[in-house]
Amino acid sequence: MRLCVYKYIFKGYFLNILVLNAGSSSLKYQLIDVETQRVIARGLCERVGNEGANHIHCVDAEEVVISTPMRNHSEALQVVLDHICDPKQHILNSLDEIDAIGHRVVQGGKYFSQSARITPDVIYKIRQLAELAPLHNNAALMGIEACQKLLPSTPQVAVFDTAFFHNLAPTYHTYPLPYELAQKYDIRRYGAHGTSHRYIAQRAAQFLHKNMWDLKLITCHLGNGASITAINHGKALDTSMGLTPLEGLMMGTRCGSIDPAIVTYLMERENLSPQEMNDILNKQSGLLGVSGVSNDLRSVYDAAEQGNDRAKLAYEMFAVSIKRYVGQYIALLGGVDAIVLSGGVGENCPIMRRLVFADLQSLGIQLDESRNKEKTREREISSDTSRVRILVIPTNEELMIALDTKRIVQQK
Amino acid sequence: MRLCVYKYIFKGYFLNILVLNAGSSSLKYQLIDVETQRVIARGLCERVGNEGANHIHCVDAEEVVISTPMRNHSEALQVVLDHICDPKQHILNSLDEIDAIGHRVVQGGKYFSQSARITPDVIYKIRQLAELAPLHNNAALMGIEACQKLLPSTPQVAVFDTAFFHNLAPTYHTYPLPYELAQKYDIRRYGAHGTSHRYIAQRAAQFLHKNMWDLKLITCHLGNGASITAINHGKALDTSMGLTPLEGLMMGTRCGSIDPAIVTYLMERENLSPQEMNDILNKQSGLLGVSGVSNDLRSVYDAAEQGNDRAKLAYEMFAVSIKRYVGQYIALLGGVDAIVLSGGVGENCPIMRRLVFADLQSLGIQLDESRNKEKTREREISSDTSRVRILVIPTNEELMIALDTKRIVQQK
Repeated sequence: MRLCVYKYIFKGYFLNILVLNAGSSSLKYQLIDVETQRVIARGLCERVGNEGANHIHCVDAEEVVISTPMRNHSEALQVVLDHICDPKQHILNSLDEIDAIGHRVVQGGKYFSQSARITPDVIYKIRQLAELAPLHNNAALMGIEACQKLLPSTPQVAVFDTAFFHNLAPTYHTYPLPYELAQKYDIRRYGAHGTSHRYIAQRAAQFLHKNMWDLKLITCHLGNGASITAINHGKALDTSMGLTPLEGLMMGTRCGSIDPAIVTYLMERENLSPQEMNDILNKQSGLLGVSGVSNDLRSVYDAAEQGNDRAKLAYEMFAVSIKRYVGQYIALLGGVDAIVLSGGVGENCPIMRRLVFADLQSLGIQLDESRNKEKTREREISSDTSRVRILVIPTNEELMIALDTKRIVQQK
Repeated sequence: MRLCVYKYIFKGYFLNILVLNAGSSSLKYQLIDVETQRVIARGLCERVGNEGANHIHCVDAEEVVISTPMRNHSEALQVVLDHICDPKQHILNSLDEIDAIGHRVVQGGKYFSQSARITPDVIYKIRQLAELAPLHNNAALMGIEACQKLLPSTPQVAVFDTAFFHNLAPTYHTYPLPYELAQKYDIRRYGAHGTSHRYIAQRAAQFLHKNMWDLKLITCHLGNGASITAINHGKALDTSMGLTPLEGLMMGTRCGSIDPAIVTYLMERENLSPQEMNDILNKQSGLLGVSGVSNDLRSVYDAAEQGNDRAKLAYEMFAVSIKRYVGQYIALLGGVDAIVLSGGVGENCPIMRRLVFADLQSLGIQLDESRNKEKTREREISSDTSRVRILVIPTNEELMIALDTKRIVQQK
């Protein structure tokens, strides 16, 4: 800690932030120089706590896979730190050069409206909120505890997926359920992917040479998990994910919004427990469930092209489900300046984008087909006459976490 | 039957249609002269099969309540027929003057894309479909059987709430669930209120002096149950109710669309059976659940005016839930010519309409505040400069059932 304070005083800024994203049996990391926004090292430990654990690290564009036993997240972090400080890798000279650690935490629940420095109280609250996201929050805690053990004097920050939606107005975050029952279990719209939505909204404003506070934006994070957010003058107005990341868009394996009566209807007829039903809705539905082919949109598209009717149906349903939210959010925002696409699907699927934005001229939305097909990274894909601008902005949650971590650590 | 055929041949049309809407312990009726569209008699038998059964019939604007024991729907129908043929009532001289009977049937499932003459096969199918709407379809069957007993030679027609949505494209009627599981239980979007949506769409086209086939319409049936339909050139494209009438808008006591994970979440924590959970979502949620005051929007509004914050929240949430669908359907239709409001709330709540259509100028939607406050029946409430026209059209499902019944009986 003394070293950090010393550096803070003399350098006035933090350089190297280690960003950790812990899953129940994985640990993703990036080491980012926040001044240059350069990724110094990145990689993934997989099958942590299981047989056949690997450390996969990236050297330039190549992945190096090293089979390494890792009994827990602490051992996985040790593997990462050893790698980062390995003189042969030319990454860092010592652990002292890691100035701070930023953790992705999925559920910040009712407590966190922004990123927070890790303290015993913050850990206590993250643990409490595990009720709402059991796998994710407990994994984040394992990552945090591993850091406390191995880098005890390095400041740590928790960056919450839900924080961007913490201040949704009650009209948007309340569910039409019996009020006391909802209160009893803290049932409200928490959303997810908040760090991504915040990042792409900021980048979109920069791209448009505007201030985010002057814009109405619809941000679409479209990956295997997918969500859409309406952002009114820099603040989230509404988002498609709800109490859990199941609500909203149809996704890779998640059903998204359906008639809630289907849940009890199927449980009764198939004699399913709540947990079994949850598994069906979260893991066997969406693109995979309808197509029977894959949860990956590219595979579904390929199958559709080869004449698979169910794959074609799944592909079209996914497009319609995005279109529903685009229309809905234009109404809730009372108009929109730009629609921003991100995530694997949003960034790389021109055919999906074409379906989503077809026939929306009456809403002032017009795709430029040749721009839509370009493969550059950040770009505009609407036509010059489109009143609403359509942008493709690759997301970068890790950078957002690193920047938040820097800001929070400097505040203290 | 001979008389009917005789009249059909010689008069060339049917005059008097008895429209029946049977609930599990009720029987609503209207006797309609379809040529003049005049309601000759109307009333309701309530608490059928229970203590304290009443026959309530209407004489002009007044209701006359007569306590009458009715052990079943057959006895209730007998009470109605006796009343209609009572010389003192000056309604009909004899039962022969009832030319046909039209039944409201809630669930036509996968079988019925339009109204159907009652045959043994049709009865068999309605019974099969009771799985999807147990209370409603079984009640309709009781009404049909009572008619077969008491008016054996009078032709009967079933008019299905779902028929208007039977031909939704698979992209719109399929749920993103495991495909085989959805197939096994015929899980798809069936919708409801179809007769009402069809009626108000036709009236709207007449009001606009247009052909329905040339219009893009959004029809809003907003009562204690509420649904919205996107109608593309006369055909339903999508509707907010789903497998059951629980999906879609927030309603009087129904939650509408929520994160489906909330269902299993609450069942686990409160140890609820599927049926108990269903009751909460269908009967204790919506306006009633949020406000704690009432399922009736007027009472909720009054409480909000008196400073009840939960009532204010419920009122605003209801408006937002309508607005979501208006925006969504404009996107799916690729624009809209007119938005049509109907049902108790749609016809009589100017403040709700103001909230729903606030800040939609960018979508070409502009309410005229003074027209909105008028109390005439069919009318336009958009401003002269509004690109999208907003109409209030009182619904009349009974007339639609009578007209369908006439058409079907004449076909045969």
